[in-house]
Amino acid sequence: MTSSASTPAYDDLCQRHRRKHRLQHLHAMASWDQAAFMPPGGAVPRAEALAEMEGLLHQLGTDPALKDLLARAEQEPLDDVQRASLREMQRVWRSANALPQSLVESKSLAISHCEHAWRSQRPANDWAGYVENLRPVVRLIREEARLLSESSGLSKYDALLDQYEPGMRSAEVDRVFGDLRQWLPGLIRQVMERQAGEAVVAPQGPFSTAAQRALGLDAMKLLGFDFAAGRLDESTHPFCGGVPEDVRMTTRYREDSFLQSLTGTIHETGHGRYEQNLPRDWMGLPIAAARSMGLHESQSLSFEMQLASHPGFAGLLEPLVRRHLGDQPAFAADNLHRMMTRVAPGYIRVDADEVTYPAHVILRYEIERPLMEGEIEVEDIPALWDAKMQELLGLDTRGNFKDGPMQDVHWGAGLFGYFPCYTLGAMYAAQWFATMRRERPSLDADIARGELTPVFDWLKDRIWQQGSRYETPELVQRASGEPLNTAHFRRHLEARYLG
Amino acid sequence: MTSSASTPAYDDLCQRHRRKHRLQHLHAMASWDQAAFMPPGGAVPRAEALAEMEGLLHQLGTDPALKDLLARAEQEPLDDVQRASLREMQRVWRSANALPQSLVESKSLAISHCEHAWRSQRPANDWAGYVENLRPVVRLIREEARLLSESSGLSKYDALLDQYEPGMRSAEVDRVFGDLRQWLPGLIRQVMERQAGEAVVAPQGPFSTAAQRALGLDAMKLLGFDFAAGRLDESTHPFCGGVPEDVRMTTRYREDSFLQSLTGTIHETGHGRYEQNLPRDWMGLPIAAARSMGLHESQSLSFEMQLASHPGFAGLLEPLVRRHLGDQPAFAADNLHRMMTRVAPGYIRVDADEVTYPAHVILRYEIERPLMEGEIEVEDIPALWDAKMQELLGLDTRGNFKDGPMQDVHWGAGLFGYFPCYTLGAMYAAQWFATMRRERPSLDADIARGELTPVFDWLKDRIWQQGSRYETPELVQRASGEPLNTAHFRRHLEARYLG
Repeated sequence: MTSSASTPAYDDLCQRHRRKHRLQHLHAMASWDQAAFMPPGGAVPRAEALAEMEGLLHQLGTDPALKDLLARAEQEPLDDVQRASLREMQRVWRSANALPQSLVESKSLAISHCEHAWRSQRPANDWAGYVENLRPVVRLIREEARLLSESSGLSKYDALLDQYEPGMRSAEVDRVFGDLRQWLPGLIRQVMERQAGEAVVAPQGPFSTAAQRALGLDAMKLLGFDFAAGRLDESTHPFCGGVPEDVRMTTRYREDSFLQSLTGTIHETGHGRYEQNLPRDWMGLPIAAARSMGLHESQSLSFEMQLASHPGFAGLLEPLVRRHLGDQPAFAADNLHRMMTRVAPGYIRVDADEVTYPAHVILRYEIERPLMEGEIEVEDIPALWDAKMQELLGLDTRGNFKDGPMQDVHWGAGLFGYFPCYTLGAMYAAQWFATMRRERPSLDADIARGELTPVFDWLKDRIWQQGSRYETPELVQRASGEPLNTAHFRRHLEARYLG
Repeated sequence: MTSSASTPAYDDLCQRHRRKHRLQHLHAMASWDQAAFMPPGGAVPRAEALAEMEGLLHQLGTDPALKDLLARAEQEPLDDVQRASLREMQRVWRSANALPQSLVESKSLAISHCEHAWRSQRPANDWAGYVENLRPVVRLIREEARLLSESSGLSKYDALLDQYEPGMRSAEVDRVFGDLRQWLPGLIRQVMERQAGEAVVAPQGPFSTAAQRALGLDAMKLLGFDFAAGRLDESTHPFCGGVPEDVRMTTRYREDSFLQSLTGTIHETGHGRYEQNLPRDWMGLPIAAARSMGLHESQSLSFEMQLASHPGFAGLLEPLVRRHLGDQPAFAADNLHRMMTRVAPGYIRVDADEVTYPAHVILRYEIERPLMEGEIEVEDIPALWDAKMQELLGLDTRGNFKDGPMQDVHWGAGLFGYFPCYTLGAMYAAQWFATMRRERPSLDADIARGELTPVFDWLKDRIWQQGSRYETPELVQRASGEPLNTAHFRRHLEARYLG
């Protein structure tokens, strides 16, 4: 993406970003290895090597020459794509330069201290101890929010949210979550009543890791993962890493249950295909990156929820499951589908089904937003948590901190403004499939007979190949012809669970 | 290794080297992954990422500030270890700064062109085509040798050799190879006559990769490899990479034969344990690195030839082989030992046994040295090759270029001065074991009953923990009480093959 017109500042910026990208490649691979293969003895030198590279990348991203180059590039005769590319370079620059080095370092220290303590405080249900470590993290992220707010003109929470979902604002989140809040608790009750009389045959384990791995690989093939440009390995916490040309997915196996690994692998395959199909012509520039955390989740949930939990897809999974795990009554397609769509309120977000999951996210959003705006303090979290869990899912969580606000480490890791993206992703995914259905009425029948190409082509064309060409709201409008519309998510849930 | 005395220049140098070391960690891991796990789609971006890092490391190693720092450190109150450390920093600096950037780049291009063409020219036996690509490599390495010679005061070939075996000179190589040349051809004939009447039971394959891998891992355990600080994986060309705290070994498997993979794994385990036991206190500084290519090979050959091919060691291997590959008459200890010590002249160096291997190396040395000194040209190689193969191994290689000078890519890759290290390593290894035997007369009985700790302790104390504290000749003297002495290698071969 070097222009034929004279754009020396823009060209210089491209060269600098491509250099950073090549160095980030090494960081991505070493991080993947750290989670997937590294023996314990490598931990300390690996952490030092990654930190050294992070320091170098930060240095390249805060090079004083960048400010002037960005300003000069603004005045150059750029075409539309280059202008979008420059906008993304500016975003990256603002994010790297908004914070003074001292704040970056204090934040890093406070987070690593909080995360480390959390590992033992969570099992001990030690909220009082955890609060002492969470408080400095909150203080530093509030400071970060203040600085980001000053440089962007957004509210504090919006400035944080914008890091994960560019262009998304809390007014919009309020609108869509407010709508969800109206009908979700009722829907959950209705689905549970309906499923109460439903018989689900339980699979009989154990299922060997080798057989589960072979099943997962076959599911990835069915879903179009390009094995010439990626791998599947194991790690304690599944993730999708690597680089677009070489995507490194991980999963984990439990021998007493195959479904978690299978759906987890399918979920990561959605992330993986997004990465594999990002625009190659722009590779190395910020415009070639995946748009946002919410958009990424819309791809993993397109694969896991819209496709794999589709009643027609169970018929495609059945022969794969039987091939690798043997013959069992539980493996009949309709039973597989029932297993994959079972709804039950629970304490733990990451274990939640598609229907109750948004309740967890709404709760987090309704706590983290006032926390960041300074309207509440960390001490207020448990009472709010209890009230909202009662209200949204009918669960009593009093005194159970470890399965309450201590269940995951996001806040302790400084991730505020991140939780909404999970449910935004679920809603985007429903909207993509509603659009596909409108444009191609045979879609559900196509899926049931294994004709998945139309789905992949649509996602590739409208989402994957767009990279970061547009901010999220514009991308949503272009892909689906309308802004984010919660009606699609509601219709999806009603059709699947009450239809 | 920061002094309590005031040594600001030396301390600055330490900091710079540690920084480079942390970045090299990422390069090492990405290189390992490239060979062991990377799917084909990663090839281009990985090569670009590695090249970017090489450029950065070169830039750090040629920072103009270094020259002054090295000179100032010379004047600082350094202790003995620091002075040795500074000597190694100077060696690294000279090597990085001897060549102008233009030569580094031309060399890199010529080599990658030659290596690439070699892949198809070798199977086609196309010597005429290969010569066209080898000639520019030779021209550039001669230029490199000239520049290295100017900066070091060594002869051209010695300047190249010194890169791989610091302190070793061709006068010394002439002495030891000249001695070898006297008795080796006769010894080969004697061993072959003796083995002619010997019955070796052939193992019956196939042997599954999984079983071979389990056998290899057990052999590594027996040999003390630390699995908390390393791994074994697969690659087309086995190697030992990674970093001392996290050694990445690879091997390859052929289902029709288990011995190659087993001895290959044992060989790499010697390299691996050397790396794992380098001095941790100096980590990140050049003085903490393995001494040389020849010393490294002395460790892999200590494991493969001195230990694993020891008649007593076969008794330790037998139960492992039976456990993983089943019961076969071929797996009796005495038969395993016969399989591992079979001698036969052949065309291919990497397939050669312990007795004929030095003949291959002497041949390469006697060709590459005059080639580098400008006494012969690449066109002269085949005739010299034929004459020397006839003389040393009694083999006719006329017209067979692919199993002759094209059999390996070392010269095409610019590696001149490297071949002697293989046989120097074999001779060092024999000298280490001769010294151990002198100091501990029960050594052979200890090995036979599986008491390997004395061997490992000796190597750790005399070699591994010394890092690059001494140049090779001094290390040899300190470890064994005498300079390199070919009598030990001769006695080892005679005892094992004619005893």
